[in-house]
Amino acid sequence: MLVEIVTTGSELLLGEIVNENSRYLSQELNTLGYSVVYHTTVGDNPDRMEQVLRTALARADMVITTGGLGPTQGDMTKLIGAKVMGLPMEYHPEISAAIRQWVHEHHPERDMTANQERQAMIPAGAAFFSNEAGTAPGVAMQHGGKMLVHLPGPPREMRWMYEQRLKPYLLRTFGSQGYIKSVYVKIYDMGEAFIEEKLMDLVQHQSNPTLAMYARPGFVEVRITARAATEAAAAVLLLPLEKELRQRLHRTAVAYDQETMADVLGRELLKRGYTISAAESCTGGLVGSLITDVPGASAYFRGSAGTYCDEMKQHILGVATETLRTYSAVSPQTAGEMAQGSRRLYRADIAVSTTGLAGPDGGTAEQPVGLVYTGIDGPWGTIVRKDIYPGDRTEIKRRAAARALYYVVQYLLENTK
Amino acid sequence: MLVEIVTTGSELLLGEIVNENSRYLSQELNTLGYSVVYHTTVGDNPDRMEQVLRTALARADMVITTGGLGPTQGDMTKLIGAKVMGLPMEYHPEISAAIRQWVHEHHPERDMTANQERQAMIPAGAAFFSNEAGTAPGVAMQHGGKMLVHLPGPPREMRWMYEQRLKPYLLRTFGSQGYIKSVYVKIYDMGEAFIEEKLMDLVQHQSNPTLAMYARPGFVEVRITARAATEAAAAVLLLPLEKELRQRLHRTAVAYDQETMADVLGRELLKRGYTISAAESCTGGLVGSLITDVPGASAYFRGSAGTYCDEMKQHILGVATETLRTYSAVSPQTAGEMAQGSRRLYRADIAVSTTGLAGPDGGTAEQPVGLVYTGIDGPWGTIVRKDIYPGDRTEIKRRAAARALYYVVQYLLENTK
Repeated sequence: MLVEIVTTGSELLLGEIVNENSRYLSQELNTLGYSVVYHTTVGDNPDRMEQVLRTALARADMVITTGGLGPTQGDMTKLIGAKVMGLPMEYHPEISAAIRQWVHEHHPERDMTANQERQAMIPAGAAFFSNEAGTAPGVAMQHGGKMLVHLPGPPREMRWMYEQRLKPYLLRTFGSQGYIKSVYVKIYDMGEAFIEEKLMDLVQHQSNPTLAMYARPGFVEVRITARAATEAAAAVLLLPLEKELRQRLHRTAVAYDQETMADVLGRELLKRGYTISAAESCTGGLVGSLITDVPGASAYFRGSAGTYCDEMKQHILGVATETLRTYSAVSPQTAGEMAQGSRRLYRADIAVSTTGLAGPDGGTAEQPVGLVYTGIDGPWGTIVRKDIYPGDRTEIKRRAAARALYYVVQYLLENTK
Repeated sequence: MLVEIVTTGSELLLGEIVNENSRYLSQELNTLGYSVVYHTTVGDNPDRMEQVLRTALARADMVITTGGLGPTQGDMTKLIGAKVMGLPMEYHPEISAAIRQWVHEHHPERDMTANQERQAMIPAGAAFFSNEAGTAPGVAMQHGGKMLVHLPGPPREMRWMYEQRLKPYLLRTFGSQGYIKSVYVKIYDMGEAFIEEKLMDLVQHQSNPTLAMYARPGFVEVRITARAATEAAAAVLLLPLEKELRQRLHRTAVAYDQETMADVLGRELLKRGYTISAAESCTGGLVGSLITDVPGASAYFRGSAGTYCDEMKQHILGVATETLRTYSAVSPQTAGEMAQGSRRLYRADIAVSTTGLAGPDGGTAEQPVGLVYTGIDGPWGTIVRKDIYPGDRTEIKRRAAARALYYVVQYLLENTK
């Protein structure tokens, strides 16, 4: 089944944001076996939108739009969609009630506006998808052998509605379109050469499964994909390869599929019954934030002491005045003492610290911007790693924080079973 | 002049990468005063590509494609472009010589292949752009009042050719297309419908400047845009509106243009010579991380104490055992004492704290997932705000952290000049 994704919104045509909705929907729909053959983006112009929908419905079997469902004046996708499909609009009191309820819960001091009320109008005969992440309902309508779907524009709402509403609806309505199954591996400190040496022979001269590799911020993602009529058949194709892959990467700090390095860290700590704490200078709190992105992190995470000046490194973490004076705050010595201080303060089994120069100013020939020391203190002693990261301030922080978690996992894997 | 950008490549339709070429070209062309009104993506299918180009040339004045110029068999954009424009292909020995030269320099052991040689064929009468970043030349052709441009697909080559070749060519060929100037305002604690009621009268029945609004994670962005022949004229059009807007939002904690709320906080703290610290439970360190995303934050940020368990809230921040027992860790009382404790510990002028339930588990009827208390302690006493955020764990953290900065700015604006 041929699919066209139509995204709306002038912020895309002005180049203010990248089109993440098209990417996400394409990836998801391809996984379900649909062929996405066109992406189109159009602005808030009713005539252009109408023509785009007519063109899309002429050349694709299913057209999915995102955006233009909200309560403001510019939001008109649903009206134009109904016109193009030749369906009248109908008022649904149950949608109105749901919107009123949402407004009441989230803005108890306010009442539903006329524009919000207008969202309760949908094309006659259309299926509608309630929106737990906001007020705008999605709709799906079939007419003349074509399917037109409207999803909301904000990526978080759109993803929720796709996952919770549209995906099950498509499976119910059209059944399976074949199945594509992938395994992802995120590799944090190795270049393509390692991957080549360790993994490439696995898929040479094969077209199903296939292997592809993508440079992501701070890591390399390897994807192995199989295509088959059913999920079970795709899994069977993938199984030997996946097994071999996991065997080769055993005791290597990598993350599989949707896992982040914080997930891996949490799993490895829980398995061993260890707690962890952090001490952060240049990452400012990002290490603690990444660790606590994992549900249930309170079982092993005790906290992170952000110390952004020398005085607090001494006062809170007990870094020696002598150390700071002799070696400066950005040094392996300070990183080590920060980790030791955090472990002591939080009474944790393992502590990790970061200290470095995130820039843009303050770099020197000996201490360039991007220089970061990561300290780890635990039952097997104190270690310090040195890195120089590329990128701007937030990129350096992001890489340093992700790598800090990676180093802790490596420390655990090297020293325990 | 209306522009359509046509990007090609199956990696876009498979959702493997975001469409950075469309974003980049849109941003650049809009700055030059062109109106980008459509984006289309199509795969390596000749019939679909031809139809897409015909549709694009019918509805836009200029069509710019990226991708499909390389030496491999699948690269066919130029041939189809010439067909659609009704122009024959011509061999250009000077292009051939340039390609041979490039191959010689980069792969001295090889000779030019037949496929590489084929790149020297371009549509009759077309301008061609040499490619210093690779072998594929770009082309621009005019016919029947329409302009069709082909740029290479790899983002680095495409950018180089746009900046060094196409942009000067467009300025030479069409002259100035006018200028577009925008002002952005980020509003942190109001929904779209309510902003509409507050600001919409400013631009009702106006087409220049225009107002648009976008839901972003944790805030709403309002954009006011004017279009004129010159930058100065656009600024003049925008000025009264911008002045009125700033007046209406005076002493409201909003961020203008590229600013984040962390930038605003930094500016307001520096202006008053105050320092700040944080104490974080549910945000895990994200408040500190956001504050330190701002270059030069060390001038006012002392650090953030992440305390992820009751024991550390007592031990590090001095929250009373009695408070935790009577009211629990997620309470206005604990939030207030955390802020007081952080201010004391870091010897800061102002401290901000977060404590709440980021979920997904642990919610109750009285304390639902998403409930967050934000405490502020400073020279004007202790205040606590209560919010219930929608979204998943990371979304709740992100909203709570952004909102915490917003509350501090509000506290500053309300209590000082």
